[in-house]
Amino acid sequence: MDSCPFIRACRGEDVPYTPIWMMRQAGRYLPEYMEIRRSVSGFLELCKTPALATKVTLQPVERLGVDAAILFSDILVPVEAMGVPLEFREGEGPKLNYPVESMKDIESLKVPNPYTSLDFVLETVRRVKEALDDQVPLIGFSGAPFTLASYILEGGGSRNYLKTKTLMYRNPEVWHALMGKLTDTVVVYLKAQVEAGADALQLFDSWVGALSPADFRRYVAPYTRRVVKELKSVTKAPFILFGTDTTTLLEDLASMGADVVGVDWRIELRDAIKILKGRASIQGNLDPCGLFMTKKDLEERVREIVEQGREARGHIFNLGHGILPQTDPEMARFLVKSVHELSKR
Amino acid sequence: MDSCPFIRACRGEDVPYTPIWMMRQAGRYLPEYMEIRRSVSGFLELCKTPALATKVTLQPVERLGVDAAILFSDILVPVEAMGVPLEFREGEGPKLNYPVESMKDIESLKVPNPYTSLDFVLETVRRVKEALDDQVPLIGFSGAPFTLASYILEGGGSRNYLKTKTLMYRNPEVWHALMGKLTDTVVVYLKAQVEAGADALQLFDSWVGALSPADFRRYVAPYTRRVVKELKSVTKAPFILFGTDTTTLLEDLASMGADVVGVDWRIELRDAIKILKGRASIQGNLDPCGLFMTKKDLEERVREIVEQGREARGHIFNLGHGILPQTDPEMARFLVKSVHELSKR
Repeated sequence: MDSCPFIRACRGEDVPYTPIWMMRQAGRYLPEYMEIRRSVSGFLELCKTPALATKVTLQPVERLGVDAAILFSDILVPVEAMGVPLEFREGEGPKLNYPVESMKDIESLKVPNPYTSLDFVLETVRRVKEALDDQVPLIGFSGAPFTLASYILEGGGSRNYLKTKTLMYRNPEVWHALMGKLTDTVVVYLKAQVEAGADALQLFDSWVGALSPADFRRYVAPYTRRVVKELKSVTKAPFILFGTDTTTLLEDLASMGADVVGVDWRIELRDAIKILKGRASIQGNLDPCGLFMTKKDLEERVREIVEQGREARGHIFNLGHGILPQTDPEMARFLVKSVHELSKR
Repeated sequence: MDSCPFIRACRGEDVPYTPIWMMRQAGRYLPEYMEIRRSVSGFLELCKTPALATKVTLQPVERLGVDAAILFSDILVPVEAMGVPLEFREGEGPKLNYPVESMKDIESLKVPNPYTSLDFVLETVRRVKEALDDQVPLIGFSGAPFTLASYILEGGGSRNYLKTKTLMYRNPEVWHALMGKLTDTVVVYLKAQVEAGADALQLFDSWVGALSPADFRRYVAPYTRRVVKELKSVTKAPFILFGTDTTTLLEDLASMGADVVGVDWRIELRDAIKILKGRASIQGNLDPCGLFMTKKDLEERVREIVEQGREARGHIFNLGHGILPQTDPEMARFLVKSVHELSKR
């Protein structure tokens, strides 16, 4: 795996071309995914059936020729294993039902043993690794403590994160207890994925950009740093830290110890690279809506991103957030091809 | 009006203390607002009844002692006057029903005559001005062309602005025609508010932060610049440009010709001030969730913002986005008092 462009770019080593993968590359925009999705009763069942999760993990590798596979799962799976009831209703986001009012509610949460309650994830990792036969690296992942906390506290997605921030501000003891337990969970969960064979790890802190820099430093950064440190102590697998809307947090994110920091399209890649100052490679940053441009315009945009990315310690091409269900798979294929062609050294 | 702290801070002149107002200060968190709201059949009816809109505009001035009133209305009111069906369903966001497919759909939109189809707004402005008796300035406002376009094209709020961006990318001619017509509308609408007595103007480009800097420059900036320029040619009323999530757009927003640029809590005020380089005063930037802190912590945060704001050309204290319906009015009152006390020169 050490010689593949994705792993090399994570480490800031020379690569023959810019590697690319896409968040949610195994997903609803692919007809072959929809076919398997329709054969099960719900989204969570698909996550929990290793034979099927393996199949959909491999689909974009086969169809698009991306440079990395990413485990098919959901960021909330470890939260369910902690004892938080989780439901995906058709056409809606996730619904969680675990009101947090006092320290007792935190004490009742389990730090799961991934080898029992999350074994379906590990089994998927093992099967995918076998199928990939060391030709393409596999990325394991987890939601980050802050983003997981926000889902638990809001009961789902949110526009303003009022319940999350209110707990932070009014009940910091409970907040820190929750974050501590989530961090323990994320650490054992990611360690188990590495043991099962994951070649790289991504921590999804998708909603961390809702915080002011001061709040990030006080309420979140110590936990992010601990996750990276504990993983770094057991594995050389590159570690990617991802968030959206993080322009003003980038200076802090660059110092978390991760190998790669992901950014979205709101910041020009060249500006993000200046902030990282060689402390980490960069991942990003095409707007997922960019796949709805004409091929000519998309190619132009890819050229700009690839050129800017050459100034980074290492650059992994990706979207700034997950690929949208409305995307034409042909455009996704065209993107992969364009990135490879336009970045050839 | 020229001597009041709000207007002086907009112009970068000396002030005895930092002026403050709050977005949505006339709104659901106030019991006296809810009482009036319950007496009408819908939110739009309240906007369209000058006697009641006047009352709710004045409520926060009376209860909180803010340094400016802002017209009670909705940013989508001019869009309805253009011929776009608009509905507010209880407990949901706005729903608009005007599919845009071709140039013909743009041609069918009217540039409204504000003195006929939007006279209820102008009448509210006149009544509020009379009631305020030049003791407190009144801010008029409009949605900005981009944010209004996004509501029309998405049919309401959006998480990814896919329809908006797809039109931009795939059909730029139709996009520019739509933006041109929206700009014409915003210009005549704001001019009429000034004629009716508004002392300052705010352009709400609430969702512009969803764009990459390159897309902002190509598809939006010329229209924003034209709105400011056309208003500046007829009035000395200070012009405030507001958006959220605009850290990477600030350099461009600073050059639009506005007197004041608003920012949200994602950026430290001191960093935003550095980017503005004295080209505009600054407005912001407490997280609306900050009103859920303890009074002691809130005071600490206010002190930091006020101190950072002293480095600006001028500073108007505000929230980074609208005050939340769950807010305790006592905390809003405490915020106003704290800003005044902690900023005394």
